[in-house]
Amino acid sequence: MEQTDLLAVRAIEQLKYRYLRALDSKDWDLLRSTFTADATANYGDRLEFSNPDDLVAFMRENLGPDMVTLHQVHHPEIDVAGDSATGRWSLQDRIVMTGYRLLLDGASLYEDRYSRGADGEWRIAHTGYVRLYEHTVAMDDLPSFALTHNHFAE
Amino acid sequence: MEQTDLLAVRAIEQLKYRYLRALDSKDWDLLRSTFTADATANYGDRLEFSNPDDLVAFMRENLGPDMVTLHQVHHPEIDVAGDSATGRWSLQDRIVMTGYRLLLDGASLYEDRYSRGADGEWRIAHTGYVRLYEHTVAMDDLPSFALTHNHFAE
Amino acid sequence: MEQTDLLAVRAIEQLKYRYLRALDSKDWDLLRSTFTADATANYGDRLEFSNPDDLVAFMRENLGPDMVTLHQVHHPEIDVAGDSATGRWSLQDRIVMTGYRLLLDGASLYEDRYSRGADGEWRIAHTGYVRLYEHTVAMDDLPSFALTHNHFAE
Repeated sequence: MEQTDLLAVRAIEQLKYRYLRALDSKDWDLLRSTFTADATANYGDRLEFSNPDDLVAFMRENLGPDMVTLHQVHHPEIDVAGDSATGRWSLQDRIVMTGYRLLLDGASLYEDRYSRGADGEWRIAHTGYVRLYEHTVAMDDLPSFALTHNHFAE
Repeated sequence: MEQTDLLAVRAIEQLKYRYLRALDSKDWDLLRSTFTADATANYGDRLEFSNPDDLVAFMRENLGPDMVTLHQVHHPEIDVAGDSATGRWSLQDRIVMTGYRLLLDGASLYEDRYSRGADGEWRIAHTGYVRLYEHTVAMDDLPSFALTHNHFAE
Repeated sequence: MEQTDLLAVRAIEQLKYRYLRALDSKDWDLLRSTFTADATANYGDRLEFSNPDDLVAFMRENLGPDMVTLHQVHHPEIDVAGDSATGRWSLQDRIVMTGYRLLLDGASLYEDRYSRGADGEWRIAHTGYVRLYEHTVAMDDLPSFALTHNHFAE
């Protein structure tokens, strides 16, 4: 990597963090702004999207206030080549499903592509991951389970 | 961001990591050293501090060896303007309460302010977060629960 | 830190992420490539290694497809001095033991040493950690527990 790539890498990391902050704070317009116009996504067989509008519409519909999500990425391995870049990340996610009374935990290895537009901004051109594991537990198995705080219930 | 900001951003990240390492290893003097003299903190309605000495005293008193804590932050979005800076982070925390026999899990979005002193060192001027969720489970709901290692019990 | 150190720090971070990606994706040759020829490791009293071949052989033997692991590190505090460097990290790990039907969660503070070879590549010269906590729960305590995805069972 060259010294000059460090700023591009940093900008791409900020982009990814904004995408996840938008997702977990349910800021769907902000989420949409992190994608190129023709971005694609593949979160496994059940969740493929051929354009960003469908992706955001799906999230908006399925991640309402009864789905409290946490998506955190780690271990950025980012390679920049001109106005394109690739990125690997390690994801850990948790969903507290207050309606279904389920706790979901999972982990994935992300492989993304990024593109820098004419305006100089990096955006997600493709996002996808290999799911390592995912498991669920019913809150009813844990009689003492207490959701002592829920931002989205306020 | 300018190339020259990268060093300031890195220094601020190191500061935040030191603050969390101090917290989780119960090194209260190190924790105190990460704050400016007039720093403030707001961890939600129940936990507000108007100066760093009160904050550290509270942690020292409430986070003894029977409260094994893990606070990990991710997704730094840091903006530097001269000798001031702001930072967003995604927090995940877990507390293993060996006395109360409770497991606590939570997540928050941090919004901090940092200040660079006359000595060139960055310190935390304000730290605060919006709590996304927090939940607790009693160990007694998990008859097999085994704390196979506890550093602070040694 | 100097501006010129940023590239070395970044390279060391990439090394650590590759080491963990190799571990969690069970890519043992890639794991071996992250160590110097005489690297040592100390993961607590039970797990010490005096050379990288023993370490990789141990992982290969003990982390088969019935041990789904997630190791994520955070909070890099890296200091570079010429062709040597030290690094602190905060680790969180989870193991889903499908054979033993156990869930293991733990956290540690890593202290590593890195070395830059004649080929310009950074490698791990020593890795070790202080374990903060570790706990296990039997899946049988959670009758609803469902492993809804397992990459290594495919």
